[in-house]
Amino acid sequence: MRAVDIIAKKRDGLELSTAEIEFFVRGYAEGHIPDYQAAAWCMAVLLRGMSARETTDLTLAMARSGKVLDLRAVAEWVLDKHSTGGVGDKTTLVVAPLVASAGVPVGKMSGRGLGFSGGTIDKLESIPGYRVALSHAQFIRQLREHGIVVAAQSADLAPADGKFYALRDVTATVESIPLIASSIMSKKIAAGATGIVLDVKVGRGAFMKTLEMARELAQLMIAIGQAAGRRVAAVLADMNQPLGQAVGNALEVHEAIRVLRGEGPADVRDHCLTVGALMLALAGHVANLEAGRALLARQLESGAAWHTFVTWITAQGGAATVLEHPERLPQAALIEPLPAPRAGYLAAIDAQVIGQASVVLGAGREKKDDPIDHAVGIVLHKKIGDAVERGEALLTLYANHADRLAAARELLRDAWQWSDSPPSPPPHLYEIIPAELAT
Amino acid sequence: MRAVDIIAKKRDGLELSTAEIEFFVRGYAEGHIPDYQAAAWCMAVLLRGMSARETTDLTLAMARSGKVLDLRAVAEWVLDKHSTGGVGDKTTLVVAPLVASAGVPVGKMSGRGLGFSGGTIDKLESIPGYRVALSHAQFIRQLREHGIVVAAQSADLAPADGKFYALRDVTATVESIPLIASSIMSKKIAAGATGIVLDVKVGRGAFMKTLEMARELAQLMIAIGQAAGRRVAAVLADMNQPLGQAVGNALEVHEAIRVLRGEGPADVRDHCLTVGALMLALAGHVANLEAGRALLARQLESGAAWHTFVTWITAQGGAATVLEHPERLPQAALIEPLPAPRAGYLAAIDAQVIGQASVVLGAGREKKDDPIDHAVGIVLHKKIGDAVERGEALLTLYANHADRLAAARELLRDAWQWSDSPPSPPPHLYEIIPAELAT
Repeated sequence: MRAVDIIAKKRDGLELSTAEIEFFVRGYAEGHIPDYQAAAWCMAVLLRGMSARETTDLTLAMARSGKVLDLRAVAEWVLDKHSTGGVGDKTTLVVAPLVASAGVPVGKMSGRGLGFSGGTIDKLESIPGYRVALSHAQFIRQLREHGIVVAAQSADLAPADGKFYALRDVTATVESIPLIASSIMSKKIAAGATGIVLDVKVGRGAFMKTLEMARELAQLMIAIGQAAGRRVAAVLADMNQPLGQAVGNALEVHEAIRVLRGEGPADVRDHCLTVGALMLALAGHVANLEAGRALLARQLESGAAWHTFVTWITAQGGAATVLEHPERLPQAALIEPLPAPRAGYLAAIDAQVIGQASVVLGAGREKKDDPIDHAVGIVLHKKIGDAVERGEALLTLYANHADRLAAARELLRDAWQWSDSPPSPPPHLYEIIPAELAT
Repeated sequence: MRAVDIIAKKRDGLELSTAEIEFFVRGYAEGHIPDYQAAAWCMAVLLRGMSARETTDLTLAMARSGKVLDLRAVAEWVLDKHSTGGVGDKTTLVVAPLVASAGVPVGKMSGRGLGFSGGTIDKLESIPGYRVALSHAQFIRQLREHGIVVAAQSADLAPADGKFYALRDVTATVESIPLIASSIMSKKIAAGATGIVLDVKVGRGAFMKTLEMARELAQLMIAIGQAAGRRVAAVLADMNQPLGQAVGNALEVHEAIRVLRGEGPADVRDHCLTVGALMLALAGHVANLEAGRALLARQLESGAAWHTFVTWITAQGGAATVLEHPERLPQAALIEPLPAPRAGYLAAIDAQVIGQASVVLGAGREKKDDPIDHAVGIVLHKKIGDAVERGEALLTLYANHADRLAAARELLRDAWQWSDSPPSPPPHLYEIIPAELAT
């Protein structure tokens, strides 16, 4: 078998065999196949597509390129959730303790943010002392002892995906549904959870710009998960505007704390109840989504979710006093409002621009190894459908550098669309797949 | 400007600007843009295509990546011809002295063979003493003194093309009309000829399998040449069966010698008269193609073409005695016929299989740096349309290793199609572009 023949076959739009895909993935992971052949192959896959069977084979080959954790020794059901990436998406911070407090273990490995989209690990690192780097033994021990663990993706899980992902980033081959699906699912399968909820974001602030693309991605990932013996469901959720109000690491942790204490934005709370209920439904822990939402709402109100949150964070080394006193999280030096340039109703907020502005402030990365500033970011005061007076604060900017503040302010100028009559805000939730879990 | 954005633009099917193409080609030639980005870009170009304007820009950027010879100081017209590659194609060996003998200088740089397709430089090296490596000063001096020179492509002409070509070979991105056209024309433009005839081969033994593809390639290369201030025309010629009888380096030199002496296969003579006449017509040296063919036929009959051939080869160091006594060219130790397995008319000969069999014998290369054996090859005794008796020799195999002989014999088993009634042989010549030069 030769790599060049496999590239040519995909270039010509033909279906690759399981053996060909395994040969290519193993060859690339082990370094026999060079970057330039993998790059040509990724471009051919992006432009010619892959069948569900090929994508499943690719996923399994990448998952098996490294260690595959077996968490069934810990519990029959270990739950995980994955967001395809959004702006202000602090769902994991709320959902993980919420679900774990209801008695089903949550074991999750997560990534760092890149570009306009944030990453859970960066957010958790804004809590002083929190350890993101756990060995597999530490990961399993904490899961067993506390029923909840969230650590950084370790490099020995799906190493082939790590190589492909870095290559795709610099060869314009990110935006391929089969490559996105296999990248996500190879890591999820290797991380060992038996039930996985995919939080697929749709809209201007997401990789998936349309509902059709999001649905295709979700269905593909569900099929892959099932082929690997996992139960998988998906939530298609809006990302035309940011989720909640806070965008930026410590600011999002603060908002998550408010939600876990029964406060915070209604959209975040609602989204977390849906994602969490779906996780419990996957595990057969509740009869349906409504029962799951009701159970989790009680977990919030009783303080049980908050208790689990504190247990989790402190077990991973995070400072408990910061959780009780979130004003002790990293604080920005410059805090300034962005006044509305006109009166009217907000018809659209470009979540991608909001995300880019937070990167400019220092909350995210342009390149993989850029440092980030946990304190900075944006807090929105107005969302789509809100009435705004001229000069009223649309948002507050949190910055540590005046020049970055000015650059973000400039970028944010075009983030808004206005209407003179009240527009109807977009739904938070579009769809649950499979549909039978939605009832 | 960023390479990844240029890749993404082509991936999305958009037209690249002149500045973007220059940035990419220069960056790759100078090593700022790595192989993996160039590989993804080549695949995007192959699958998304390029406009004639983009292809011209690519060609000029590659031509200007190294030295561009200016031959106008030697003569107003210096002619070149280029074959897109075939089996048994010894046209240059005949046409170069034929045209030069008529008084218009011929200055050509040529390549080595790769795969089933032979290369002029390998053929010339079967003449003991012939020097293929000339400096630019030596190239121009011989052109000035003798009006004819054929040397190996020097590495400092179009070095960007050299890098792209090597990369395309291992990334399944060879078969792209814009990439093929720009690769050929960048080298032709850098080598400095003012008039260029393209000998575009069509059929099973050529890269272009259909007349439509060959026409597209020819028209594109003519447009590129004109944009670079050169006069360019094309001959679309058949390569379903090999040209002439001989396939293999010394065997082809021998056949060329026979044609230059007024003997040899009629199809080779006819093809060379057409290509040569078109070269003279480009330079305005003859009024039309017919006048050119008539002039060149007289050059063959008078011995003038032969005289120029001997002058050329000996000026580049080749042994004159070998030209007069071609039996002193490298000789194979094993010479065996391939008998016909049945009686009938030959309906098809797979030129690609004939070419592959000659590679198996050692006449060509599988990989770029494989050594070759100048003595070995194949001489066809039957062509399409010929009547054959069972057991009659279809061809003669020339080999130096019994195992290679056996392997070639095995490969040749499926090279033939038979008919019980006389089929009409394919035309040698399909088309001349531009059409007004054909009259």
